[in-house]
Amino acid sequence: MIHEIREQADVLERVLLARPDVEQVAEAIRRHGVRRVVVAARGSSRHAALLGAWWWPLLAGVSVETVPLSLFTLYEALVPLDDALVLGVSQSGRSPDVVRALEVARAQNALTLAITNDATSPLAVVADHLLDLQAGEERAVAATKTYTAQLLLIAMLGAALAENEALWRDLAQVPSLVADVLQREDEMTALAERYRFMARCFVLGRGLVFGTAAEWALKLQELTYVQAQAFSIADFQHGPKAMLERDVPVFVLAPRGKAWESAHAFVRYLVQETDADVLVVSNVSETAALAHRAINLPDVPEHLAPFPAIVLAQLFTYALTRTRHLDTEQPRFLSKVTETF
Amino acid sequence: MIHEIREQADVLERVLLARPDVEQVAEAIRRHGVRRVVVAARGSSRHAALLGAWWWPLLAGVSVETVPLSLFTLYEALVPLDDALVLGVSQSGRSPDVVRALEVARAQNALTLAITNDATSPLAVVADHLLDLQAGEERAVAATKTYTAQLLLIAMLGAALAENEALWRDLAQVPSLVADVLQREDEMTALAERYRFMARCFVLGRGLVFGTAAEWALKLQELTYVQAQAFSIADFQHGPKAMLERDVPVFVLAPRGKAWESAHAFVRYLVQETDADVLVVSNVSETAALAHRAINLPDVPEHLAPFPAIVLAQLFTYALTRTRHLDTEQPRFLSKVTETF
Repeated sequence: MIHEIREQADVLERVLLARPDVEQVAEAIRRHGVRRVVVAARGSSRHAALLGAWWWPLLAGVSVETVPLSLFTLYEALVPLDDALVLGVSQSGRSPDVVRALEVARAQNALTLAITNDATSPLAVVADHLLDLQAGEERAVAATKTYTAQLLLIAMLGAALAENEALWRDLAQVPSLVADVLQREDEMTALAERYRFMARCFVLGRGLVFGTAAEWALKLQELTYVQAQAFSIADFQHGPKAMLERDVPVFVLAPRGKAWESAHAFVRYLVQETDADVLVVSNVSETAALAHRAINLPDVPEHLAPFPAIVLAQLFTYALTRTRHLDTEQPRFLSKVTETF
Repeated sequence: MIHEIREQADVLERVLLARPDVEQVAEAIRRHGVRRVVVAARGSSRHAALLGAWWWPLLAGVSVETVPLSLFTLYEALVPLDDALVLGVSQSGRSPDVVRALEVARAQNALTLAITNDATSPLAVVADHLLDLQAGEERAVAATKTYTAQLLLIAMLGAALAENEALWRDLAQVPSLVADVLQREDEMTALAERYRFMARCFVLGRGLVFGTAAEWALKLQELTYVQAQAFSIADFQHGPKAMLERDVPVFVLAPRGKAWESAHAFVRYLVQETDADVLVVSNVSETAALAHRAINLPDVPEHLAPFPAIVLAQLFTYALTRTRHLDTEQPRFLSKVTETF
């Protein structure tokens, strides 16, 4: 797994080369008159798509929704999809429910796009368009390099839809940003020691980094068996914060940007009004200074923060898995291809 | 709180009287050419709307999506909403982010509907249409009667959209169904004793009862401070099941219906292949027989199961709160109106 984490700068460099393919898909989306995007995905792939749920409406005025796959597989519900792009995201391309969703979508005259790491998979075959991650085989059960590759493709598709050259220039920095934070393995290993005996935690984020919070929580769940629970910072205040306990650390993603103010205010509340132990991931020194521990993010605009943030979270989680004497490659109960229907 | 739980049969009886108003809203939805429903809601109100996310596509071919409210409040993203009904659900009608979402939606030519327990609230004022819960003041912080009233209104709106008389007849049974399960306080009190010392649990459901699982988990979070985590049964298999532990019970909603087969298979897996202690809520004796403990649901079709299931879950959670010597009316850190933006 650590090799796959370390490969990510190279993988992302390669993903950027797909710009012509991405622009072709964007052109097809415009031709089809797509007004909304329906995401069919589970697990890490769904978390990658959550970047699009904020980014695409903001940049390109296209709304993005994730849909319950059981509607397609169990309930056989038919909704009008002719104005939709149905986007199937799956590392393996072999999740039967994601494949089925795209089959139904095609029959309903939706435009369909597969984002997968296997260009010969059933998902790739069924879709009108394919964006191949070309991340190389991923052996560890927990997705790392395929997640960041999906994330970058989804960001690129946003840039192509918005025809925004400034954004393309931002995205060109992603591989070097990731290479930089990959140098911080020792720092993350030292930090993870402090959390060796936690049994549970909360992982909070809002807006563009909500998907990052969900993905970090999933990595912790799969690899460390810590009961990690992700929430949007706003949703957390509508009930779940009653669960705050001295022995349950709260990890808060609080990068500079539109969602920073509410994240910062909530970190202050946590520290001043509760017993919670708080770890923040931020590039705002004021926020880092409030918390009990901080992971410093590089100084990037909010829309780039999900890339370095998740790579640091992967390194942290890998180190925590090792210090808990657990298997980093093959977590209990799990297999690489999850076949739900 | 227990009084508000016990009031629910009467409240639901009253909600049914709103059929003419609901049909008027359905007519407005048809006139507006609505193709999809966008839900603006948080907490219990969002969980009530999740019934619509399965039910409305199935019955009326209308897709239902919940949208990140920060898109409206922080990011000012504008997406085309002229073919949408934007549905604001809020017990108090005073959540600033839900109100803001409806303001933006109106400016975008969406049809807007408020479902709230306060007909004079800002949410009621801003919306084109209003469905008033008329549930009477709810004093306890944790929503109970307003949740089931929202659930029934959303189900009624589905029946009206589908112009389905058989469904209206089904819904007419809801108050007596709820009255029946309200007789089972003693049974739920005895059962809750067994869970006195759990620190965390999983609550799983799929399809029409996924929202029920999410709402039960929220009740446990708010009232008992147990770290309860809800998942769809399929999503749970994509990683989170690595968290299964002997001391973390798994509650599974498995009513007869389209999602039963996968729920039943997963209960069998849990019991045979893991150490998990399993509590099922089901009206299928075969499933109840597999699990370590069972709450028997009345013999109703799947689409009615969310009503008796959540009322039993409320009684269970209330009893657990009492046996843990916690405050049932005023949980720590929470207030009745949560003002996030």
